[in-house]
Amino acid sequence: MTKIFNFCAGPAMLPEAVMHKAQNEFCNWQGMGISVMEVSHRSPEYIDMAQQAEQDLRDLMEIPDNYKVLFCHGGGRGQFAAVPLNLLDDKLDADYLLTGQWSKSAVVEAKKHARIAETNIMTETADGKISVQACADWQVNAGAAYVHYCPNETIEGIELFDIPETGVVPLVADMSSTILSRPVDVSKFGLIYAGAQKNIGPSGLSIVIVRDDLIGKARQAIPSILDYKVQADADSMYNTPPTYAWYLAGLVFKWLKEQGGLAEVEKKNIAKAALLYNFIDNSSFYANYVDKSVRSRMNIPFTLENDSLNETFLKESKAAGLLTLKGHKLVGGMRASIYNAMPIEGVQALVDFMSAFEKKYA
Amino acid sequence: MTKIFNFCAGPAMLPEAVMHKAQNEFCNWQGMGISVMEVSHRSPEYIDMAQQAEQDLRDLMEIPDNYKVLFCHGGGRGQFAAVPLNLLDDKLDADYLLTGQWSKSAVVEAKKHARIAETNIMTETADGKISVQACADWQVNAGAAYVHYCPNETIEGIELFDIPETGVVPLVADMSSTILSRPVDVSKFGLIYAGAQKNIGPSGLSIVIVRDDLIGKARQAIPSILDYKVQADADSMYNTPPTYAWYLAGLVFKWLKEQGGLAEVEKKNIAKAALLYNFIDNSSFYANYVDKSVRSRMNIPFTLENDSLNETFLKESKAAGLLTLKGHKLVGGMRASIYNAMPIEGVQALVDFMSAFEKKYA
Repeated sequence: MTKIFNFCAGPAMLPEAVMHKAQNEFCNWQGMGISVMEVSHRSPEYIDMAQQAEQDLRDLMEIPDNYKVLFCHGGGRGQFAAVPLNLLDDKLDADYLLTGQWSKSAVVEAKKHARIAETNIMTETADGKISVQACADWQVNAGAAYVHYCPNETIEGIELFDIPETGVVPLVADMSSTILSRPVDVSKFGLIYAGAQKNIGPSGLSIVIVRDDLIGKARQAIPSILDYKVQADADSMYNTPPTYAWYLAGLVFKWLKEQGGLAEVEKKNIAKAALLYNFIDNSSFYANYVDKSVRSRMNIPFTLENDSLNETFLKESKAAGLLTLKGHKLVGGMRASIYNAMPIEGVQALVDFMSAFEKKYA
Repeated sequence: MTKIFNFCAGPAMLPEAVMHKAQNEFCNWQGMGISVMEVSHRSPEYIDMAQQAEQDLRDLMEIPDNYKVLFCHGGGRGQFAAVPLNLLDDKLDADYLLTGQWSKSAVVEAKKHARIAETNIMTETADGKISVQACADWQVNAGAAYVHYCPNETIEGIELFDIPETGVVPLVADMSSTILSRPVDVSKFGLIYAGAQKNIGPSGLSIVIVRDDLIGKARQAIPSILDYKVQADADSMYNTPPTYAWYLAGLVFKWLKEQGGLAEVEKKNIAKAALLYNFIDNSSFYANYVDKSVRSRMNIPFTLENDSLNETFLKESKAAGLLTLKGHKLVGGMRASIYNAMPIEGVQALVDFMSAFEKKYA
């Protein structure tokens, strides 16, 4: 059978080793004779696993002790509401930096609760590439409760490697599609959140990493499932958490440690992205329209110069075992999402296919 | 190896046939070469599966066409907030009937958003059993936006088989622990919700069945993930749903159909509950303190007359492969949760164990 590589932007592929382990112990976890998804979240066995998962994440990201790690319901979009409801405190204003569709969607939700100052920091280079203003040029509203940004935009394929300087104003990052792909200095952030279904595990789980002093200021009418204090006080078990997703996230964290941690993972991600971008840049058949300084390592959109070949490309790539390469409808073209779980062999298989396709149709 | 039976109140055991099917296709769903949890929720394959799951649930519960079925994030407690935020409309008041801990917890959350009239309908019989007032005796506030109740209380082991008559006031039921255990007339309800982790699937998913005219009245500041209109308009895909939980729920719905539907499932549940209650009632070593008219078929709490034997009972039952029989800390003693997935062989194994334990220690 053809080896399958799945380039879905999310829910994304999970590491092969993780999936095999999970399959093997699916009906008999830790010799208990039942599945981990059938185990009480209050049992010592489950709590041990859950705490180890948190510790492994703390180790991987070097999360300082004055940050809580929460395992939440509701995905990334749940956090679009949770962030203003928890962080506004007695303020009315929050700052949102716009770099693409995800940061724009966060604004729509936040506007229900706060006065949002939106700063569009997307720019265009002289040669027509999408880019982003340099961090130093961003203006922060010192009266804002927080500044929100999205360091990786899956749809446009933009990634920001500099961390905005926001002074005393807490910085909030939607890291759904870049978390764990490289080391970050957590202490620069007030809050980091991420939907799980890209670099963490299956959908239905979000991870929140929040500095202690930002907890406990939620608006009174906040739904408790979104209240960081409620979840922190209950070790993320105010209600039954998504127990199977938490378990799978734990397996992914262990796998990342086995890979050598985030510095090693970053090297692989740099190599994978370079392989694909270099191929695209050296071809006149394919193109990527993002300035090199802000190109995403996780989501690589590209177009065929002759877009009447799009359907053929998708059909033939699927037949070759390269799945879900269709670009987001807002930008069209193709997109290869190559999160941590994608091995370089998958990117090589894609490049080989693209090369052969070009020879066939150019 | 000893056959394991898991009496956890939730996350609960899932049907053995479902678990084996899920394990077999864990890494290769529908011959795609990837897991269903790695498939895009926007793909035709996933959407077909998701729609079929909804249709199977509609068939099982005979859900009328003027009700939407939503697959949501956030569990049952997410709905504790979603219900008032969606249904209050321009009203201030809601009525909550109290029958145990779960209905009380729903009130705590609802009070953030509404003026709640709580009606404690728990009573005590002359011989000291817990009971519930007859439906006919309940007073409904005609000005309330809705009446909320919980037809099965997992902690006390109380189940209500009569449906409250609330006239024009919509009736809302938290069916987390009784849904799909017997037929119910959905048309009597404005809204039914259920956390998945008892009779539906793994934790992290909730199902909402809501009458069309109750959709679209949400308060402006509602988080979108909890807004029924947002989710209904997006076929429950406003954000990435908990895709694996939805898939497993679909397998459970198919399995229930194979069992002959809810009328057949109810017969089995009646037989299972009768087996255990009859044994308890015929023993002077064990006791159940719920009046027969409101005894739960799903969650059967019982005590040992000599509670110094509790730890021994738990230790020996676990060694015999009978897991998670410890009662909730609020009521103590033991609890056997015997949802749909528990075969009568499991209840028989428990009764056999209890009988032998009694002979050994009485």
